[in-house]
Amino acid sequence: MDIAALRSANPDHWMRSTAIRALTLDAVHAANSGHSGMPMGMADVATVLFDKHMKFDAKAPDWPDRDRFILSAGHGSMLLYSLLYLTGYEDMTLEQVKNFRQWGAITAGHPEYGHAKGIETTTGPLGQGISNAVGFAMAEEILRARYGRKLVDHYTYCIAGDGCLMEGVSQEAIGIAGRHRLGKLIVFWDNNNITIDGTVELSDSTNQVARFKAAGWHVIEIDGHDPEAIDAAITKAKATKKPSMIACKTHIALGHAAQDTSKGHGALTDEAQMATAKAAYGWTTGPFEVPGEIKSWWEGVGTRGASERAAWEARLSEASAQRQAEFARIFARDVPKKLSARIKALKKQISEEAPKVATRKSSEMVLEVINPIMSETVGGSADLTGSNNTKSGDMTAFDVDNRKGRYVYWGIREHGMAAAMNGMALHGGIRPYGGTFMCFTDYARPAMRLAALMKIPTVFVMTHDSIGLGEDGPTHQPVEHLAISRATPNTYVFRPCDTVETAEAWELALTSKETPSVLSLTRQGVPTLRTEHKMKNLTAQGAYVLAEAEGKRQAILLATGSEVSVAMAARDILQAKGIGTRVVSMPCWELFEQQDEAYRKRVLPGGSAVRVGVEAAVRQGWDRWLCGERGREARAGFVGMDSFGASAPAGTLYEKFGITAEAVAEKVQSLL
Amino acid sequence: MDIAALRSANPDHWMRSTAIRALTLDAVHAANSGHSGMPMGMADVATVLFDKHMKFDAKAPDWPDRDRFILSAGHGSMLLYSLLYLTGYEDMTLEQVKNFRQWGAITAGHPEYGHAKGIETTTGPLGQGISNAVGFAMAEEILRARYGRKLVDHYTYCIAGDGCLMEGVSQEAIGIAGRHRLGKLIVFWDNNNITIDGTVELSDSTNQVARFKAAGWHVIEIDGHDPEAIDAAITKAKATKKPSMIACKTHIALGHAAQDTSKGHGALTDEAQMATAKAAYGWTTGPFEVPGEIKSWWEGVGTRGASERAAWEARLSEASAQRQAEFARIFARDVPKKLSARIKALKKQISEEAPKVATRKSSEMVLEVINPIMSETVGGSADLTGSNNTKSGDMTAFDVDNRKGRYVYWGIREHGMAAAMNGMALHGGIRPYGGTFMCFTDYARPAMRLAALMKIPTVFVMTHDSIGLGEDGPTHQPVEHLAISRATPNTYVFRPCDTVETAEAWELALTSKETPSVLSLTRQGVPTLRTEHKMKNLTAQGAYVLAEAEGKRQAILLATGSEVSVAMAARDILQAKGIGTRVVSMPCWELFEQQDEAYRKRVLPGGSAVRVGVEAAVRQGWDRWLCGERGREARAGFVGMDSFGASAPAGTLYEKFGITAEAVAEKVQSLL
Repeated sequence: MDIAALRSANPDHWMRSTAIRALTLDAVHAANSGHSGMPMGMADVATVLFDKHMKFDAKAPDWPDRDRFILSAGHGSMLLYSLLYLTGYEDMTLEQVKNFRQWGAITAGHPEYGHAKGIETTTGPLGQGISNAVGFAMAEEILRARYGRKLVDHYTYCIAGDGCLMEGVSQEAIGIAGRHRLGKLIVFWDNNNITIDGTVELSDSTNQVARFKAAGWHVIEIDGHDPEAIDAAITKAKATKKPSMIACKTHIALGHAAQDTSKGHGALTDEAQMATAKAAYGWTTGPFEVPGEIKSWWEGVGTRGASERAAWEARLSEASAQRQAEFARIFARDVPKKLSARIKALKKQISEEAPKVATRKSSEMVLEVINPIMSETVGGSADLTGSNNTKSGDMTAFDVDNRKGRYVYWGIREHGMAAAMNGMALHGGIRPYGGTFMCFTDYARPAMRLAALMKIPTVFVMTHDSIGLGEDGPTHQPVEHLAISRATPNTYVFRPCDTVETAEAWELALTSKETPSVLSLTRQGVPTLRTEHKMKNLTAQGAYVLAEAEGKRQAILLATGSEVSVAMAARDILQAKGIGTRVVSMPCWELFEQQDEAYRKRVLPGGSAVRVGVEAAVRQGWDRWLCGERGREARAGFVGMDSFGASAPAGTLYEKFGITAEAVAEKVQSLL
Repeated sequence: MDIAALRSANPDHWMRSTAIRALTLDAVHAANSGHSGMPMGMADVATVLFDKHMKFDAKAPDWPDRDRFILSAGHGSMLLYSLLYLTGYEDMTLEQVKNFRQWGAITAGHPEYGHAKGIETTTGPLGQGISNAVGFAMAEEILRARYGRKLVDHYTYCIAGDGCLMEGVSQEAIGIAGRHRLGKLIVFWDNNNITIDGTVELSDSTNQVARFKAAGWHVIEIDGHDPEAIDAAITKAKATKKPSMIACKTHIALGHAAQDTSKGHGALTDEAQMATAKAAYGWTTGPFEVPGEIKSWWEGVGTRGASERAAWEARLSEASAQRQAEFARIFARDVPKKLSARIKALKKQISEEAPKVATRKSSEMVLEVINPIMSETVGGSADLTGSNNTKSGDMTAFDVDNRKGRYVYWGIREHGMAAAMNGMALHGGIRPYGGTFMCFTDYARPAMRLAALMKIPTVFVMTHDSIGLGEDGPTHQPVEHLAISRATPNTYVFRPCDTVETAEAWELALTSKETPSVLSLTRQGVPTLRTEHKMKNLTAQGAYVLAEAEGKRQAILLATGSEVSVAMAARDILQAKGIGTRVVSMPCWELFEQQDEAYRKRVLPGGSAVRVGVEAAVRQGWDRWLCGERGREARAGFVGMDSFGASAPAGTLYEKFGITAEAVAEKVQSLL
C-alpha cells in the first residue's frame, strides 16, 4: 500500500484516522499484547462514519435515540477505545487508554459492556456483535413504530471481520435481518483477507457479497481506505430499505511491516517497526500524544450531535406525561407498578383452582397476564411456538408491515435468537424473551453466557426440560443442562414446580435488572402444589419448606420442577410408615445462595435427618445441598439421571430410569 | 398435488416409494407421536437414490467402502427405518418398526447411532447431520488418497431440511465443503417450505440456491417427486467436482389432508385421513403390510451391492498383509502397538528433563510422538493453530491438491469443526482431534454432546483453560466450562498438570473407543511435577496421590491442571508449619469415579484431615470430592472462581482472584 499516496490524497482525513492507528500501536505496545492490525485497517471507515454519519453526543452517551456502533470484531477494541477517547467520552481518559488490558482498567482486551459508556455490547466471541446488532435494529423498528420517528429514529452500525462471518451464528443473524428488511442496519465487512492462521483462502472461499445478497441484503463494495467512497456507501446504505453490507477492502496493519499478514492481526510491539510505520504516516508526536488540532477536531465530532440531542429532548418533553413516564420506565428496566398485584391475583386464582398443567402452559398463563400490561416485552421462539407456549393471545407477529408486532418467529435459529435478544435488551426499551427446548440451550450457549457476563436480563424460556419430553429421545432430552446454566455465573435458573412458582419465577425474571434468567419448564402436566395462597414470592428465597415433616423429622427431600410432586408423593409413602419427611422446593439455587445463613439453616437444618435430592438431571452440583456447607455431617442420596435419556413415552422413562416416589422413599429408607 | 397423476406417470416407482409413506403413517399412528410428513415428502428421492445410486449391501452393513446416507433432518426417522427394513437390514425387523419410539426399540424418535446398522450418525438436533456429512466426505478423500480408489471410493449423501439450513452450523459446514471442493458430497434439500411454526416465509427469505453457490457448491433444482429428474440430478452431481446441493421441491405429507401445512410436519394419526390418503395412493394392504412384490423389489435393492462388495473384498485381499492389517486396525479404532512404548519413553524423558512448559505445548510434544506413528490421526484448529499447538511438524494441510494432508485449517468455525470431526470418527479409519480455546467449548457444545451420546472418541483440544489466558479477558476465560464438560455423560475431561500427565491423557484419549475426550490445557507455563518416572499411566486412575503428607496427615489438597503446582507450593508452606499435607492430582474425575471404592478411599481417606479443592474454575461438582460420598464427615474448602474473570496479565489475575499457594494454605489453616 502506498501510504504516501493515501496521505497526499486526503491529508486531513489521513491524520485524523491515523490518530486511531497511533493510539492503537502505543496501547498495544504498552500492554505488550493485543490486536493492532484491525484498528489500523479500519481507521478510515470509522473516521468517516463518526465524522459524517454517526448520530451521537459524547457528553450524553445514554441518549436513547443515538445511533449504535457495534464492534463485532471485538479484538480490535483499540479502535473503539480510540474513538471514545478522541471524541471526548468522559470516562475514556488517556490514562485508561494507557492502561489497556490492565487490572481495573475499563479498557479490557475486548470491549466489555458496562466498563465504559459507548461500549454498546461485549464482543470478542466472534459473530456475537453482528447478531446483537440485528436485535438492536429490531428494537429500533419496534420502538419507532410505537413511539414515532420523533422519539426513535436511529441506525445500527456494525463492523464485522472474516471471523464474524465464518461463525455460523452470523448466517442466522443475516437471515433474520434479510427476512425482516432491517433497513437501518448497516454492517461494514472488514475485508482484509487475513485470519490468525493465514490468509482467508486457507479455510474459506465463500463469496460474501453473493452470500449476503442471497439473504436479502443490499451490498456495496468499496475501497475501505477511500474516505469519499466510504461516505458515499454509507449515504447509499442509509437510503436503502434493506439491511446493507458494505464490503470494505482493507489492509490489515496498514502501513506497518506486518501489513497484509496474519502477524499483523496480533500485537505489533517491535519498536523499530513502530517507528518506521509512524514515520511513513507522518505521525511525529510521542507515544499517546495526539496533536492538539487533531484532538480538537475529534472533540468537535463528539459534540456535533449535541444540538440534535437537545432537539430530541425538546420533542420528548412535548410528549404527554404518561408517554414520557413510560419511555423513561422502559429504558430504566422498571416494571409497571401493577405487575406485582396482577401476579398475586393470578397466584391466588391458581391456588384455588389447582389445575394440573405443564409448566410451559403455566408460563403461557403468566404471559397472558404480563404481556398486556408490559408493552416492552417482545416474545418469540426458535420455531417451537406451540411447544414453548411463548405467544400470548394479544401478541401479533413482528413483520415488515407490522413493526408494532411483539412476537418474533425466529426460525430454527436458537443462537441467533439468543444473540439478537441480547441486542434488544442492550438497546433498551425492550424486555426480550424467547423459547426453545431446554436441550438446545447448547445451541444458544455462547449468547447466554454473554447475557450473564454483560449483566442484562434476557429471559430464556426453555421447555421440555427433562426425560419428560418423551419419545423424541435423548437428542432432545436435557440431562446436563440445568448443571450447565447453574455453573454459569450471574444466571438465575428457575425450575418451578407448578403454576404458582412459574408466576413467581416470571416476576423475578422481569424485575431482575442485571441477571438473565433461564426458565426450565416441563412438557408434561404437573399438579398444583402451592394450594395455599401466599402473597409473598416464595421463589424469591430460592428454596423453602413446601411441606413440613409430621412427627420427628427423619428425612428432608430436596427437589425442583416436575420432581417436587415426586418428592411430595414420596413423602406420603414415608409418612405412612411413620418417617417424618420434610419437602423443600428449590426453584432457584442462586437465590437460595443469596439468602442469609440463618434462613438457609432453617430450610436445611443440621442434625441427623437424611437428605435426598430429586431431579431428573445429573447430580453435579447437588452435593452442595446434600452434604451441607463445609461438609457438615449428613447422610445423603440422590435420585436422578446418570446417563443420557431414551426414546419412549415419558411415564415409561420415569419408571425405567427410577425417578419415582417409590424409588425416593426407598432411597430414604436405605439411608436411615 | 395430483396423486393420481403421479401414480399413473410412474406406477412402479409410485408403489415402491409409497411403501415408505405407508410404513411411516402406520408407525407414527402406532406410536401416537412422531413426524409423518417428511418421509412422505422425500420418499421419491430416497427411493431413486437407493435404487439407482446408493452403493451398499444390506447384508454387510459395515462394509467400509459403502456409500453413506445421512438423514440430517432426523425427525424424519421413519424414512430411514423404512429404507432399512425394506432393503433387508437384519436388525431392522418389522417388529422394530412397529415399536417405533418405544422403550428398548432400536427405532428411537430420532435415529440413534449404534441402535441399528445403517444409522450412520445420530441426528435430530438440526444442522448436525449435514455437518457430520462434511466430515464423512473429508474422511473419504483422505483415505482414498492414502489407500487408493480400489479400496476407498464412495459418496456421502445427505438429506437436509429447512431447519438444518437455518441453523448456523450449516453455513460453517457448507463453507468448509465448498472450500475443499468435496465433490463426493451430495446434499438433498427437502424444499417443502414448511417449518413447525408455519411456512418458511414466516422466518426466512434466504435464496438457498444462491447461498450454496456463494459457498462454492454446484446446485441443481428439481421436482422432488419426479423420479427421472431425481436420477438425472444425482448422476450429474456425482460427475461434478464440487459438492452438490440438489434442491428438491417437495410436498410435505404428500397426498394427506395435511399436505403442505405445518400440521403435516408432525404426527398424522387421524385414522380417517390415513385411510383417505392410502386410498388415494392405491395402497390397499393393512397396517405395516407391504405387498410381497414390493418388498421383494426392495430386498433386491438391498442386495444389489453384494457383488460389488465381494469385488471390493477381493481387492482388499490382494493388498499387502501390512496394508490389510492397517486398514483393519484403523477401522477397529485400535492404536498401533508401539504407541504405549513411545508414550512411556516420552514420559521418562520429560521426567528427567523436567521442563517448565504450558500444557498446550506439552500436547504438541506428545503429538510429535503420536502423529508419525498413527497415520489415522487428523488434526486441526478453528483458526488458532499456533495457540492450540495442534499441528505437529510432520503434518501438512489437507487441501484440494493435497488430499493426504492430515491437518485441517477449519477457519473460525468451532461448531462446524466439532461436527465434521464427529463425521470423520463415524466414517471410520480416522482419529480426529481439533483445537480451540476452552471458552469456545460453548460454540462447539451441540456437537460435543453428540459425540458423547454417540459413543465416538472425538478429541477436543481445549487450550487457554482458565484466567491464565490473561489479557484477552472474561469473554475468553473459561470458568464454567470444566463443569459443563464434566456434567455431560460419557465424556472424559482431562486436565493434566504437566507434560507427563498430558502424555498419559493423550494415550487414554486415543485408546478410548467409545468416549470422547476434552483436553483442558493451559496457556501459561507450568512446572513438571511428575519428576519420578512411572511406567504406569497414573492418569488412568483419574486421581492419585502426587505427594504424601510428611508426619500426621492433617490436610488433603485436591487439584487439577495448572493448580496442582499451586497446591504443591501450598503444601510446602503447610509442611513448613508442621501441617502434614497430601496433594492429590485429579486429571480425570470420570476415570476416578470408575475406580473401585477401595482405591478411591486410599486416595481420599476418611478421618479428620481437612480437604481443600483448588481449581481456577467454579466450584460446581467439587463438593462431590470435598464432602465425600454419602456426606461423610469432612471439613472442606475450595479455592477457585466464583465469578467471571477479567482482563489483565495472568499472574495478576491469579493474585487478584486469590488462587495462590498462600490462599490455599490459609484456607487449610482456617479449617483446622
